[in-house]
Amino acid sequence: MKAYNAPLDDIRFVLWHLVDLDSLKNLPESDVLADQGLTDTILEQASRFATEVLWPLDSSGDRQGSRWNEKGVTTAPGFVAAYRQFVEAGWNNIEMPGEYGGQDLPQVLCCAVQEMFVAANKAFCMCPHIAPAAVRALVAAGSEPLKSFFIPKLVSGEYAATMDLTEPQAGSDVGALRTRAESQPDGSYRLFGQKIFITFGDHDLTENIMHLVLARITGAPAGSKGISLFVVPKILQDGRRNDVLCTGIEHKLGNHASPTCSLTYGARGDGAVGWLVGQENRGLQSMFVMMNGARFNVGLEAMAVADRAYQQALAYARERVQGRLVGGKVPVAIVEHPDVRRMLLSMRSQIEAMRAVGYQIAAARHIADRHLDAKERQAQQAFVDLVMPVFKGWATETSIEVASTCIQVHGGAGYLDDHGATQPLRDVRITSIYEGTTSIQAHDLVERKLVRDGGAAYRAWLPKAELTVTQLVDSGSPELSDIGRGLQRAIEALTTAVEHAIARFPNLPSEVLAGSVPLLRAFGIVLGGWQMGRAALVAQRCLQQGQGHAPFLKAKLVSARFYSFHVTPLAVSLATTAVAGGASVMAMEESAF
Amino acid sequence: MKAYNAPLDDIRFVLWHLVDLDSLKNLPESDVLADQGLTDTILEQASRFATEVLWPLDSSGDRQGSRWNEKGVTTAPGFVAAYRQFVEAGWNNIEMPGEYGGQDLPQVLCCAVQEMFVAANKAFCMCPHIAPAAVRALVAAGSEPLKSFFIPKLVSGEYAATMDLTEPQAGSDVGALRTRAESQPDGSYRLFGQKIFITFGDHDLTENIMHLVLARITGAPAGSKGISLFVVPKILQDGRRNDVLCTGIEHKLGNHASPTCSLTYGARGDGAVGWLVGQENRGLQSMFVMMNGARFNVGLEAMAVADRAYQQALAYARERVQGRLVGGKVPVAIVEHPDVRRMLLSMRSQIEAMRAVGYQIAAARHIADRHLDAKERQAQQAFVDLVMPVFKGWATETSIEVASTCIQVHGGAGYLDDHGATQPLRDVRITSIYEGTTSIQAHDLVERKLVRDGGAAYRAWLPKAELTVTQLVDSGSPELSDIGRGLQRAIEALTTAVEHAIARFPNLPSEVLAGSVPLLRAFGIVLGGWQMGRAALVAQRCLQQGQGHAPFLKAKLVSARFYSFHVTPLAVSLATTAVAGGASVMAMEESAF
Repeated sequence: MKAYNAPLDDIRFVLWHLVDLDSLKNLPESDVLADQGLTDTILEQASRFATEVLWPLDSSGDRQGSRWNEKGVTTAPGFVAAYRQFVEAGWNNIEMPGEYGGQDLPQVLCCAVQEMFVAANKAFCMCPHIAPAAVRALVAAGSEPLKSFFIPKLVSGEYAATMDLTEPQAGSDVGALRTRAESQPDGSYRLFGQKIFITFGDHDLTENIMHLVLARITGAPAGSKGISLFVVPKILQDGRRNDVLCTGIEHKLGNHASPTCSLTYGARGDGAVGWLVGQENRGLQSMFVMMNGARFNVGLEAMAVADRAYQQALAYARERVQGRLVGGKVPVAIVEHPDVRRMLLSMRSQIEAMRAVGYQIAAARHIADRHLDAKERQAQQAFVDLVMPVFKGWATETSIEVASTCIQVHGGAGYLDDHGATQPLRDVRITSIYEGTTSIQAHDLVERKLVRDGGAAYRAWLPKAELTVTQLVDSGSPELSDIGRGLQRAIEALTTAVEHAIARFPNLPSEVLAGSVPLLRAFGIVLGGWQMGRAALVAQRCLQQGQGHAPFLKAKLVSARFYSFHVTPLAVSLATTAVAGGASVMAMEESAF
Repeated sequence: MKAYNAPLDDIRFVLWHLVDLDSLKNLPESDVLADQGLTDTILEQASRFATEVLWPLDSSGDRQGSRWNEKGVTTAPGFVAAYRQFVEAGWNNIEMPGEYGGQDLPQVLCCAVQEMFVAANKAFCMCPHIAPAAVRALVAAGSEPLKSFFIPKLVSGEYAATMDLTEPQAGSDVGALRTRAESQPDGSYRLFGQKIFITFGDHDLTENIMHLVLARITGAPAGSKGISLFVVPKILQDGRRNDVLCTGIEHKLGNHASPTCSLTYGARGDGAVGWLVGQENRGLQSMFVMMNGARFNVGLEAMAVADRAYQQALAYARERVQGRLVGGKVPVAIVEHPDVRRMLLSMRSQIEAMRAVGYQIAAARHIADRHLDAKERQAQQAFVDLVMPVFKGWATETSIEVASTCIQVHGGAGYLDDHGATQPLRDVRITSIYEGTTSIQAHDLVERKLVRDGGAAYRAWLPKAELTVTQLVDSGSPELSDIGRGLQRAIEALTTAVEHAIARFPNLPSEVLAGSVPLLRAFGIVLGGWQMGRAALVAQRCLQQGQGHAPFLKAKLVSARFYSFHVTPLAVSLATTAVAGGASVMAMEESAF
């Protein structure tokens, strides 16, 4: 299998031309963005680490998996050493705060690094990607003693972190959880209960693990208003094992090297020692801070796996000679066959769209965190809140399709384990489920992001997309005008569907929710089309001005045209369905299913 | 996991109301269709066999798989006994000719039986489904001695059959094969070469296996014009092993209980003894006879797995309690959540559409085989030839999506091996690849089924769909009118795309082929919408006349409405893409991918 080759040119194109790093560099603590040599070095180092250290363990990790016995989890061969190198190179704390020794890199750079690492080895990344979110939760709500003890150990990589939400009866409905916390005279708590689906809930990469656990303090209200957040270390300060036990790991379709653990608190009887993070009964708020970041990461990781799948499919298509073209005499590499080209462009153009949207969100988060003007911070945060569920839902569903197309490009060989073409699909299939299913994202989009503010955030974003339409239509290029008109049709259909959802939700919530996933998918396609339109404008301008590498820029134009003709039209259908399709969903008698 | 429960009511609805068995019963050798009691008994017996014998081995077969050692392949535990029961009950020869002891059941009934068996255990069915096609090939082209020796043993189930086409360098391009056949003084041949991807190429279900092998007689022309078809038994008449060896089986994403074999002919040096079937160098023609049937079977089997996936998803959705409805106080089964309902209806309505189209094709094949009027036979055959690649491509791609939705409905549990929700996706993922990838189907559709006759077969079919539109629009029911208008828009867009393809193919074949899969998918959705529209008309009429079971008929109306609002609009987008999207596919420089 061809080694992972980070798409540095594509990443740089998005960073400098679409995200416009130049406009971010004057924000507080954004100096690094002013130094293109430095950012390039970071990207190149990450690319090398991805290819040289992480990628070689990806396929073997899939085959060998993590193993469990009653002493705990052993990761796949090579993972311990790779983690050591990861920490030594400082990759574990690039997005952690400088005041605790982290590197505090802007999120828009971190997400480029993350893309490369995940594409090279998703299962490995499942572990170190949790710690930065855990640090954010501690910074936001933890007491000083908790912060000063735990954060430096997370920054140094000595400790790993976990997020412990799910219980057998409490999946999407976190409020149904039953793990209980009993307060102790010394201010600590003892936890009792069972958690499932805990990513890297136990492992041998670090000497200790800091679990962030949602539990209900004895006597707290039922439901989501009685949930608190606790820090529960695997090993206590005095070196004893805490009373938290990994009782098994799941056998899964993919992500075999990432152990998905069941944890029991209080199995020995004394309860797991934990400390409250933030206020009593306010645990979900802290967890939501982490969840928003986690949702973004999941969208990004799905895109990264999709890109890896594209690279695999392309390498096979160039190498596999089979069949002749119409009128041709000799067999050709299948990359020359029209439908194989269509499949490859469908993968590639959607990956480009997802990357551009994802990095755009990262930039917006950066501004929302650091801008000096509160109004600008709010505006950017409103955009982030609006599009976060869209990005998560759309990017994951799209990446699953892309990964399935990778198998299709391989033909019969794609179905066999030893060609590795199934791994992207098996690895990415979970992304539309964990950190909130697509249903949950669509519900969030409709109820909290569109209905709650009466569409204000949507209407604040709309002129940006409409500006792109105008620029495309008025570009003087027939091709760009076509792209602009296609995008315009999709935007109009989407806006109609958004207005429809806002108007009808108060009286017919179920009917609107029954059309919410088509709405989310239409929105995602439009966001992607907006960015692809911007990319086409940039490419056209650079070509006209004789800047940049012409073949690369021409490919950007082709990719944008492809997206416009093959993907954007689906948004119109989906938006139509969002408006008209809900009633039929609710018309079915439950017994008639 | 809930046992497979054959959808007998749905199957009967299609057979009697959409396919109109009554109109077929007066054809030659169609007496069984005149006896509804008898056909019901056949369907019920098949349903019972599926649930009681095949289904219990499905999940265990997936886990345990077939095993290979140098002596050959051992099937999963229970498969030998199940095959014996299968043959004792006569299920193996229902579609074999009466003159050789087969039951000669009409194809439209056989396909109902096949649906149930495949849904219950796809991997098992991969073996006995080959023999009927092999018998057809022998009947069509075999010499009398070959027919009289082999066919009775296939009818009795003593022998199994295989189709041996693929070689490492010859997949979609069968003409590239290298296996050679040397003619012997006694009229037999000796074969030398290697075949891969041979389904049930070796196993322990039968005492002998009859391989149908494509090979090139020494001195024959290169390419597809020099290929001949041979019968090569695993064990020769004198009891000796023939020189054909199973050298291994593949490790695959799914279908674990169906061994996918590599076979070597002539490994011992003397060559595998074989006999020519039909004329020299005319092997592909015989194989195409089998392939057309095989393509139909693959479309049908994909739909069957999709139905199984629907049943699993529905059972889980009824059982899993999680989350509250908007404004609700208590947790509900997830089947009540709007988006889960949407997912279930998306699965269900598309399965109904695929079943109706598939059975319709089976009925057309029945008429094309047996009608006394040659013109009617030709007309039906033209319809079958036109829609066969559409059905194969559309049903397999759609069923893959449906199986993926089954995982989604399960949430986190869907990703785990032990819930069984991944098996349908893993099993069905191959169907869009084997027996001709979707690319190949779309190429066949455009070049051989649309361009070659200048659209005559398409235009012969069109009035039937338009009649359904008229009936819906004029039905007096606003709901049915809506369905009719949606279907009309899709038909118009499809017809435009078909005309565009026919007009441009001679000059721009690659550009047309680059839009051929979207065209095929649009056509499939329209065929499905046509049948869903007919189903809605029947349901409405029966309800008005007080016939039938009202809740069942109302559900048919809901399902048709859902399809109309959630699926049919996609055909318009896809048809637009087929027209306008090809150029962008071909515009990409190959080096720029």
